[in-house]
This record gives sequence, structure tokens and C-alpha cells, in this order.
Amino acid sequence: MGIFEIGAAAKAASIQLAALSSEAKNSALAAIAQALKTNAAAIFAANKQDLEEATGLPAPVVKRLTFDEKKLADVLAGIKSLISLPEPVGVVQKATLLDDGLELRRISCPIGVIGMVFEARPDALVQIATLCLKSGNAVILKGGKEARRTNAALAAALVQAVPEPAGWLNNLETREEVKEMLALSQFIDLIIPRGSNAFVQYIMANTSIPVMGHADGICHVYVDAKADVDMAVKIIVDSKTQYVSVCNAAETLLVHKDIAAAFLPKAAAALKAKKVRLLGCQVARQYAEMEEATEQDWSTEYLDYILSIKVVDSLDEAIAHINKYGSGHTDCIVTNDATAAQHFTSLIKSADAFWNCSTRFSDGFRYGLGAEVGISTGKLHARGPVGLEGLCTYKWLLTGHGDIVADYASGAKTFKHTPISE
Amino acid sequence: MGIFEIGAAAKAASIQLAALSSEAKNSALAAIAQALKTNAAAIFAANKQDLEEATGLPAPVVKRLTFDEKKLADVLAGIKSLISLPEPVGVVQKATLLDDGLELRRISCPIGVIGMVFEARPDALVQIATLCLKSGNAVILKGGKEARRTNAALAAALVQAVPEPAGWLNNLETREEVKEMLALSQFIDLIIPRGSNAFVQYIMANTSIPVMGHADGICHVYVDAKADVDMAVKIIVDSKTQYVSVCNAAETLLVHKDIAAAFLPKAAAALKAKKVRLLGCQVARQYAEMEEATEQDWSTEYLDYILSIKVVDSLDEAIAHINKYGSGHTDCIVTNDATAAQHFTSLIKSADAFWNCSTRFSDGFRYGLGAEVGISTGKLHARGPVGLEGLCTYKWLLTGHGDIVADYASGAKTFKHTPISE
Repeated sequence: MGIFEIGAAAKAASIQLAALSSEAKNSALAAIAQALKTNAAAIFAANKQDLEEATGLPAPVVKRLTFDEKKLADVLAGIKSLISLPEPVGVVQKATLLDDGLELRRISCPIGVIGMVFEARPDALVQIATLCLKSGNAVILKGGKEARRTNAALAAALVQAVPEPAGWLNNLETREEVKEMLALSQFIDLIIPRGSNAFVQYIMANTSIPVMGHADGICHVYVDAKADVDMAVKIIVDSKTQYVSVCNAAETLLVHKDIAAAFLPKAAAALKAKKVRLLGCQVARQYAEMEEATEQDWSTEYLDYILSIKVVDSLDEAIAHINKYGSGHTDCIVTNDATAAQHFTSLIKSADAFWNCSTRFSDGFRYGLGAEVGISTGKLHARGPVGLEGLCTYKWLLTGHGDIVADYASGAKTFKHTPISE
Repeated sequence: MGIFEIGAAAKAASIQLAALSSEAKNSALAAIAQALKTNAAAIFAANKQDLEEATGLPAPVVKRLTFDEKKLADVLAGIKSLISLPEPVGVVQKATLLDDGLELRRISCPIGVIGMVFEARPDALVQIATLCLKSGNAVILKGGKEARRTNAALAAALVQAVPEPAGWLNNLETREEVKEMLALSQFIDLIIPRGSNAFVQYIMANTSIPVMGHADGICHVYVDAKADVDMAVKIIVDSKTQYVSVCNAAETLLVHKDIAAAFLPKAAAALKAKKVRLLGCQVARQYAEMEEATEQDWSTEYLDYILSIKVVDSLDEAIAHINKYGSGHTDCIVTNDATAAQHFTSLIKSADAFWNCSTRFSDGFRYGLGAEVGISTGKLHARGPVGLEGLCTYKWLLTGHGDIVADYASGAKTFKHTPISE
């Protein structure tokens, strides 16, 4: 099938998926879990071939590419948890009696067809496909090429387990197809790209389809004048070093000038003990040994054991810095001053505004949303970790008994607009 | 100020607006109402000049362009009603205890800076500006050029009434500036274009800023086999003729073949009595006199006393027709069969799915949302009539006491993920 036919099939499937019952979707998810077990040998064999070809890749990439018994167990646990999550479709979000017998409800529904482009991580294919299925969306997937045999084996097992509606899951195999997919605005409702910042920007610049992605993860920890120093040290160490190569790791530390002398030497020692390279502004360098930061550092996502440090004169300077250089992902204030915390969390434009806790909590599982398809740094629709709810939109359902607007325009009838409790 | 400076000022203002209290915003709205009264003479004089120049425009356009005592009274009533609406910012949408002392809340917040392009209708300027103010957004406005003097006078009165934060309201005067505005993705978070379909498409094709607009209003009424014939006649007459030049007016009537003989002659007579020109498929033309419809008619938004009519073999054919030719705006089924209605409303992809009522109800005021900035036919963020809620997004607020992810990664702590009732 060409990409146009794939898009048309996905669109047709999406209409059917929108009307599936919870039971039908959960049975399909159970069938997928069973098929993954039944086809495990073939999937592992395909993965072995992918891994054999993947010579010269860095260890973390190879680790992500691996799909073994352990990954299978994780994936199966994920499906089990997904089955137990509440039905996301058909939820009444708002109900208003417009007039007697004329009832308006805002009801959650699937978005339609999701185009998802992601890294060479085969377990993500299952996670994304099952999240889309549970939320009633058809999906067109393209994983990193290093995982192509594993992805093909996984997709085959999923489609075998859930043959209907045909077209609910489509696995693309080439980059060419992704490029073609970007033009299919008549079939695809949303594109979710995961990968490098440059890649996400490329997708955004080359499609008229809405894109939900994240531009960058330049997360800040701001240590306020009234911070608890030990708590602040603990939070910056966790935010920076608990897992350095992820988008919710901190990249910049901002420190109020009044606490710099008490905090910075301790923080620098703790960070250096974790092998973090420090790059500081002129003022920060008076309190601890570190290299000089350049203007470029404030907008750099290191994804590594490197941290930029700036001393600021005020809370408002910290907020302005974050709103200028941040990427709208996750930013934290450490303070014992509730007013300062409230000011900070109201004024920063980020999707995730934290007070006295590590930026690393910014994650769908940790938020209790179940799995996530990604983290959105856009401002519209879903923000932060995107799970089932972010894969849904809503429609307005109005039910009447022959009601016409002419009666209201003439004044013969008037609207009641009272909430319906359900 | 150049457009870049205007964008930067709006961005700076948006940060301040996000933290304004309800009281401050409602006082500002009251001040605006007062300033409009105080400056009424100057505004009417500006409008008189605009109207004098507007020779040769169709009567409905002149009517929209007029800003007189009656329009002022409407605008003031709108502001009064807006003041009484609940505060849209800071609403806790979801609250989860991640662990003892670690609380996650999803809280509504403004989007930031809205770029709004609209028709030559000066009362819309006030409506849009005040909706943005109440929802804590800064706004860059550009109204139709025919209203430029009135818009300038209105904008001046609004800024005089609410001088701070500077840059909350920006009134553009030229088309050139709109073009430049489309490039300001660093400052503008959302563009809402109102106007012709071609214009909205132009905006979408020429910016990387998210756009919330409606492509078209090709609304359908589908008369099912089990419809009440008299009710169906009443609904199609209202949907088509109550106000023909608006996006929620019906453009196509679909009729199940089993009811065509009973329904179509009555419907045709009632529609012709309202001077509606009928264009039908071959089968429809067997039941009433009408011209022949072409393929082009199924995707045409007439905005006039014209209706295309097609007889379908089944409910599913009606759904497929709507999903193919419709614009995702508002579509109605007329039926006494609840199962058919449920099937229809689940499977059509439109923002507004109606059962036994006129498509003309699809409107922010009628929905009880207060005023609206427009109707969105996109699938993401806000759909259908967009009021205060659609001008807000949310952020995740996580408050802790020095909590770090390392404790959960090591297994020393586990998440509780229990809802917080507030």
C-alpha cells in the first residue's frame, strides 16, 4: 500500500474505533498481550538481527533498541495497567440544560488519526499503539530505522491479534514515507514527533497538520533567597544527575544573590562529586570554582553531566530568565516563602511549574497518568506529559425534540442555561 | 511601534496578566464599560466617517460596520455579563497526591498572547479584547479595514481605561502588519482568524504559530428513516433559513430513502415558501421539483437561500457522506430511533453533533458559554464555540518538600497516586 492508501485506511478505521465499547477495546488489548507472548520468539529473533546490525552505536542507544524477555515483561505489565485505566472516551465533561428537553453535553472523543514518529525503541511501538487503541485513535507509526525488523515483527503481532477495524495500526518503514505523511492533512489529525529538537522543528516547518511535540527540555532550578540550603542541594543534584540524558533533567541553576554564599559552595561540591561540569556567570564563579558560562549556555540543552549556573538579583529576574531562555518544559523554585512560590508558579510560562521538588518528576507515570506518548511543551491542547486524555478531544452533543432557533430569536422562548447534574 | 516591538510588549504584558486577580480583571472591565460611555461621542463620530466611506457595500456589511447607541448598549451588556462569569484562570482541574506531601494539581491558566484577525465589525473588537482580558491573555487585534477609524477610537478608549499592563491590547491598522505578525512565533501563542475560508487557509499556510479557526461551515441535517416528518421539516427550515449567511446554517439535507416520499414533498414546499432554491440528486428530484445538484454542491458553503439535497440508502451512507464532505462544524440527525442517533453522533467527526434540533443552536451564547471569539472546526484544544475556557490552557503545579526521584527509582519510596478532593 502507498502512503495515501495507508492514510485513507487509517481514517476509515478511526471512524469505527471512535464507536468501540470499553469491553471491545480492553479485549483487543488482552489479545495483543497474548499475541506478544505467542510471537515472542519471532520478535526476539528480529530484534537480534537489528542488534547485530547496530554495531558502533552508543551503549544507551543499544539498550533502548533491545527487546528481550525483560522488555516484553515491561510491555505486558504496561498493557495490563492500561486495561485497568478508566475509559477515556465518552466522558461527560460538562452538561447544561439549555431549555426544557434541550440538553447540551460536552463529551470526550478520540482525535482521529495520529501520526507518530519516534526513536529506535521497539517497546515504544507497543506503548504508543495500545494507548491509541484505548483512546480510540487510529495510528500511523514510524520508529527509528535501527529497530525496523523488531518494529515490523511487533506490528505484525498486533495486527494479527486485532485484525479489525483494518487500518487501525500502520507501521511505516521508510523516511520517505514520513515525508509523504506530512502532506496527508485530509487523513491525519495530529502528528506527534519524538526525537531531537532539530527533527521536531523540521516536522513543524513541513506540515500544515497540527503537531504536538516538544521543542527542547531546558529546565531550571531556581534557589530563592529563602530556600532551605540542604533541600536545594538535594533537589539540584537529583534534577541534574538522576538521569542526565532526558528532557526533564535540569540544565540551568539560578541562585538568588542573597543565598549564593551559603548555597553555591555546597551545591558545587555535591555536583562535582557526581562528576558534573559547572559553567557559571561571573558572580557565581566568586563562590565556587567553575568554568565561565557564555550567553549560548543559557539556551543549551546539554543532556549530559554539565550545568550552567547564574546568580540573579531577584525573583523577578529569575522568572524573566526562565521565560526568555527556558523551553516551557519544567521549572522549579526552591523556597520556604509561599508568596514567592506562588508568584513564581503563576508567572513562569512553563507547562510544569514545581515548588520544592525535583524536575525529574515531570513524567506521565510519576504523574499517575499511566503511560505517556510524549511530553508536550506547546501551549494548546495537552501540555506536559501526554497520556490517554491528551489523545482525546471532545465534541458537543445537543439533544432536543424538534427545537428551533426561531423560537428564541422571536422571544417566544428563553434559554435556561442551568447545569445538569449527572 | 513596529510589529516586533508590539509583539514583545504583548508578551511582556501577558506574563503580568496571568497573575492578575479576579477583582483586578473585573475592575478593569468595569473601567472599560465606563470609558466606552465617556468616549461614546468620539467613537460614534469615527464610525460615521467609516460609514461615509463605505459606499457600495452590501446592506448586511454596512449593518455590521455600524457602531451606534444600540451597538454600544449591546457591548455594555456583554461586558456586564462577562464580569458576572466565573473566573476562568486558576481553576483546579485535577488534583493527585503523588505521595505524602507531594501534591500535583492541573490548573487552568491563560494561553499568553492571542493574535486575532476579524471582519469589519467594531463591536467584535470590544468583545474579543474583553474576553482576552478576563482570560488573562494579551491580544493583538486587526479588524477589517472598513472599520479602522472606529476600531482605533475603541482601542484608544480601552487602553485609556486600562493603561496597565502596557501592551495588553494592541490594535494593528494595516494588512502588512498582519503578514509580519505571522512570523512572530517567539511572541504569539495562538492566531485566531475570522473571515472567509480562503483567508483562514491563507493564514494557516503562512505561519508556524498554532491557528484556531474554522475552515468552513458545511452543516448537514440528516432525516433518518424513523424521523418525525413534521419535526424534520421544522428543523430543516430553521437550520437553512433562520439566518442564511452564518456558518451554522445548514447547506445540505440528507434523506433516508425510506422516508423520502413522505418527507421530501413537504420539506420542498416549506423551503420554497421561504424562497430557498433546491438542488437535488437524481433520486431526490423524483419526489419534488428541484434543479440538479453536481458533485461540487456537496462541498459548497452557500451562505445563501440555496440547499443541496441527497437521498441516501442508509444511516451509514449518511455518516460517510458527512465525514467526506462536511467541514466538521455542526451536523444533525432527525430520528425517533435512539440507537440510530447514538450511532450517528458517535461516528460523525464533527465538533457539534445534534439530535432533533436545529444546527443554528451551535453558538457560544446559546450554549451558555457567554460570548465567543469564534467557532473552531479543528480537532485540538477548543472545538465548536470558543469562549473563556477555550482561551485558557493549563499548567501542572507540583508542590513538595524536597522530594527527589532517586528515592522512587531506588524503591525506597513508592507513589500513592490518590485523588485529592478539594
